[in-house]
Amino acid sequence: MSSISEETLRQTIVEIGRRMYAKGFVAANDGNISVRLDDNRILTTPTGVSKGYLEAEKMVVVDLQGKPLSGGRPSTELPLHLFIYQERPDVHAVVHAHPPFATGFATAGLALDKCVLAEVIVTIGTIPLAAYGTPSTEELPNTLKAYIHTCEAFLMANHGVVTVGKDLMEAYFKMERVEHYAKIIFIARALGGERVLPKEAVEKLYDLREVYGEKSLNPGCYACYHECIGEACSNHEVKYDPQAPDYFGEIVEKVLASVR
Amino acid sequence: MSSISEETLRQTIVEIGRRMYAKGFVAANDGNISVRLDDNRILTTPTGVSKGYLEAEKMVVVDLQGKPLSGGRPSTELPLHLFIYQERPDVHAVVHAHPPFATGFATAGLALDKCVLAEVIVTIGTIPLAAYGTPSTEELPNTLKAYIHTCEAFLMANHGVVTVGKDLMEAYFKMERVEHYAKIIFIARALGGERVLPKEAVEKLYDLREVYGEKSLNPGCYACYHECIGEACSNHEVKYDPQAPDYFGEIVEKVLASVR
Amino acid sequence: MSSISEETLRQTIVEIGRRMYAKGFVAANDGNISVRLDDNRILTTPTGVSKGYLEAEKMVVVDLQGKPLSGGRPSTELPLHLFIYQERPDVHAVVHAHPPFATGFATAGLALDKCVLAEVIVTIGTIPLAAYGTPSTEELPNTLKAYIHTCEAFLMANHGVVTVGKDLMEAYFKMERVEHYAKIIFIARALGGERVLPKEAVEKLYDLREVYGEKSLNPGCYACYHECIGEACSNHEVKYDPQAPDYFGEIVEKVLASVR
Amino acid sequence: MSSISEETLRQTIVEIGRRMYAKGFVAANDGNISVRLDDNRILTTPTGVSKGYLEAEKMVVVDLQGKPLSGGRPSTELPLHLFIYQERPDVHAVVHAHPPFATGFATAGLALDKCVLAEVIVTIGTIPLAAYGTPSTEELPNTLKAYIHTCEAFLMANHGVVTVGKDLMEAYFKMERVEHYAKIIFIARALGGERVLPKEAVEKLYDLREVYGEKSLNPGCYACYHECIGEACSNHEVKYDPQAPDYFGEIVEKVLASVR
Repeated sequence: MSSISEETLRQTIVEIGRRMYAKGFVAANDGNISVRLDDNRILTTPTGVSKGYLEAEKMVVVDLQGKPLSGGRPSTELPLHLFIYQERPDVHAVVHAHPPFATGFATAGLALDKCVLAEVIVTIGTIPLAAYGTPSTEELPNTLKAYIHTCEAFLMANHGVVTVGKDLMEAYFKMERVEHYAKIIFIARALGGERVLPKEAVEKLYDLREVYGEKSLNPGCYACYHECIGEACSNHEVKYDPQAPDYFGEIVEKVLASVR
Repeated sequence: MSSISEETLRQTIVEIGRRMYAKGFVAANDGNISVRLDDNRILTTPTGVSKGYLEAEKMVVVDLQGKPLSGGRPSTELPLHLFIYQERPDVHAVVHAHPPFATGFATAGLALDKCVLAEVIVTIGTIPLAAYGTPSTEELPNTLKAYIHTCEAFLMANHGVVTVGKDLMEAYFKMERVEHYAKIIFIARALGGERVLPKEAVEKLYDLREVYGEKSLNPGCYACYHECIGEACSNHEVKYDPQAPDYFGEIVEKVLASVR
Repeated sequence: MSSISEETLRQTIVEIGRRMYAKGFVAANDGNISVRLDDNRILTTPTGVSKGYLEAEKMVVVDLQGKPLSGGRPSTELPLHLFIYQERPDVHAVVHAHPPFATGFATAGLALDKCVLAEVIVTIGTIPLAAYGTPSTEELPNTLKAYIHTCEAFLMANHGVVTVGKDLMEAYFKMERVEHYAKIIFIARALGGERVLPKEAVEKLYDLREVYGEKSLNPGCYACYHECIGEACSNHEVKYDPQAPDYFGEIVEKVLASVR
Repeated sequence: MSSISEETLRQTIVEIGRRMYAKGFVAANDGNISVRLDDNRILTTPTGVSKGYLEAEKMVVVDLQGKPLSGGRPSTELPLHLFIYQERPDVHAVVHAHPPFATGFATAGLALDKCVLAEVIVTIGTIPLAAYGTPSTEELPNTLKAYIHTCEAFLMANHGVVTVGKDLMEAYFKMERVEHYAKIIFIARALGGERVLPKEAVEKLYDLREVYGEKSLNPGCYACYHECIGEACSNHEVKYDPQAPDYFGEIVEKVLASVR
């Protein structure tokens, strides 16, 4: 499947872990990384190890159902990775981390779903906020169901970020981009608020995706709500999943009830 | 007691100091680190040295009462470490630092005691705010009395953070986690406020602690106040220590009195 | 033209890329750097490569019209660089990046055009906000037309920053300075607001530029609006370009119209 | 005077420059560092060089009046250093930089003069805000006159920070401490405000300075204003210099006048 040797893939995971730790995208043993070895085998990081100090020979191999094909114990977040590989044959690598600005948005209940910066519109598009699901259980992948076929980067409520790519570095670079973007939007909001690009400017960017050689799934944009740009944006219908358990909505209801 | 050689422990302290300095958890000569060598001996960092440039051979050995068993002068914060070892036989390592976000909370008079992120609920639980006590005196350990038997990480008002663990890396990783968590909550508050997980979600996480191999003392949670989850949370009764000297309360009283 | 060898210029670009990535001025493959080789040749970074891991032998050579004179594909942002070299014979190097604080200002629709810090007044002067233009098209250089002959560093709305210099390090150091300055102003605003220097203090700084050996174009300053300091500031007449397409003004109009 | 070899002093300046650049305390060529070689000679950093890449052999030697005793051109900020050495025979090293949080306070017109964190009270005390003075002229040292005999670290309005010490590392560590402290106070304010320690707690810390081996000049504290702690705090009478030129006061007056 991949023409890159398994040894290179193991070294690339070590390098990505090192960068994520150095950049503060993870604390302690947070985060996990995986890549397809072939049609049925996934190479992934072991559980309980700091991502800053991975060892190439200690990665774990599992099949697409999670059955171990090597020694070592994979991350408890493996079901999330397997779900993505099953749903998205085009995805060859998955990166999960807790970068502080993007996780801050996810913890405040906010998506990054407006059209603000060209490089995000062109390469990632809407970064939706998936509802909270208990980590390491089937609840977590379930929260991604509404977005998995149209998006490439996901905020997970009260948890962190997951990004996908056609190879390891592409998935990792999306993680860098999401956090960089979240930091810029955070700063812009503190200064009065980010300015959203108008529909016309977003459409021009869609037209340029081919020029950039950009083949990621779907740019999507917030502008849909006010003046839908039509087929260029396949995202608008999935932005809010009516089936998602709305924990916080329930709590707000209770608080309001107790106040009344 | 520990099967790890003393030389390895000395090197691990050097490495933890280096990371704390690189990550900005300490400035100048701030911070101190210690580990049990056996039932009665503690290995600790010397006073007046930058944690970024420790030397393995310059660590100080003391007994559980603080009596020096080697050359060198231990940190003036040694009483805090000794108090923790005396009260908690399960604790084998203590790390103290001033990471800026967590110390910002401690300086604003705020605990990190809500259930927001799964990995904090599962591994550390409530991070209480201990009252202010003069550093290097018995006042400081006294402020921890109310929390020492139920918590694993502590904010100390107008001071910093102390974390404990069954080994050095576990205590250090809790320090990383506390600061990472404080930064995420800071960002979420600036964006409108962090969303607290509902009782149901927290209970599921408690049930999963065994799966994660997590054996830290007590997760605790803020939700107790509104709808107590019962035995799973042993924290609620100690969250506010009625004996703690309330310096700031006094000052507020005085100011109010002078205004009236 | 330049007495520095081409090999040294290639190595300097590699080093600047490394610093920009390490400092978080770029994510993923963001950013680009170029330098004049002689009257008609430009050396520039290739497209689609992380600036943290450039290779000296993979830079691309083009002529002033962008015609390739070597293998490799230049950045899609090349028209921006070429425009600057055509308009400014005194400029020998251009650096473009997305440093988060300065880009936060650019995304909130704010220029950095007040006289606040001496070293900025003396070395860069006003940092204007150019209107949004689609990246990689002629729209982008067009947004700089109003400022290119009087300024040395430019915020580009909803995009990032571009700086120019008489050599690579000067252009790069202006990028460092703009981001450092934006961070300080961000912090000052959160604390209540930055204090603007009075006209008298700014005039003294203009008089000192010769002493500092400072030959950059034009300091400019915000104070012009209230009490114009005259010839010392050639910037006031270009600060707002009446021809610039005002996307956000249009959107505000639409929103207001829909509310009415 | 100093028993440390000149070569070691040169290497220490290189190392301090490297740390200041790595930590973002300076951008471009900002900042300068100096140390006494003997009763009449000062070793200092050259002008126009990035502090991250100093070379030991390129430092400049001057006498106490600033007369060059070696090749090279010293920083244009030399008069500030000379003023401090002339006024303070106990000071053997001076460090000047623009760390972003402390400079943010200085740019917002705010001193760091409250008693909040024990390690600051004990080692530095009040960090006053000196009025703005034109850099590289006599105006700048003049703004420190009111504080130079009682303080060890100074914010300079719309400029940066200067710290002094009995040796290079002590002066540098004060720079680290000031910035770390400013960052914590910034965070605490965004979270609702820092809590000031009561007079009683501050007095205990004064009593402990001998235990800590702390011999810096004067702790001072904000509490003076409300309930003066007497001789322990020699700072209160110098906190506001009635002679300092109040640029911003003047401007406020003008603005108010134009509004009336």
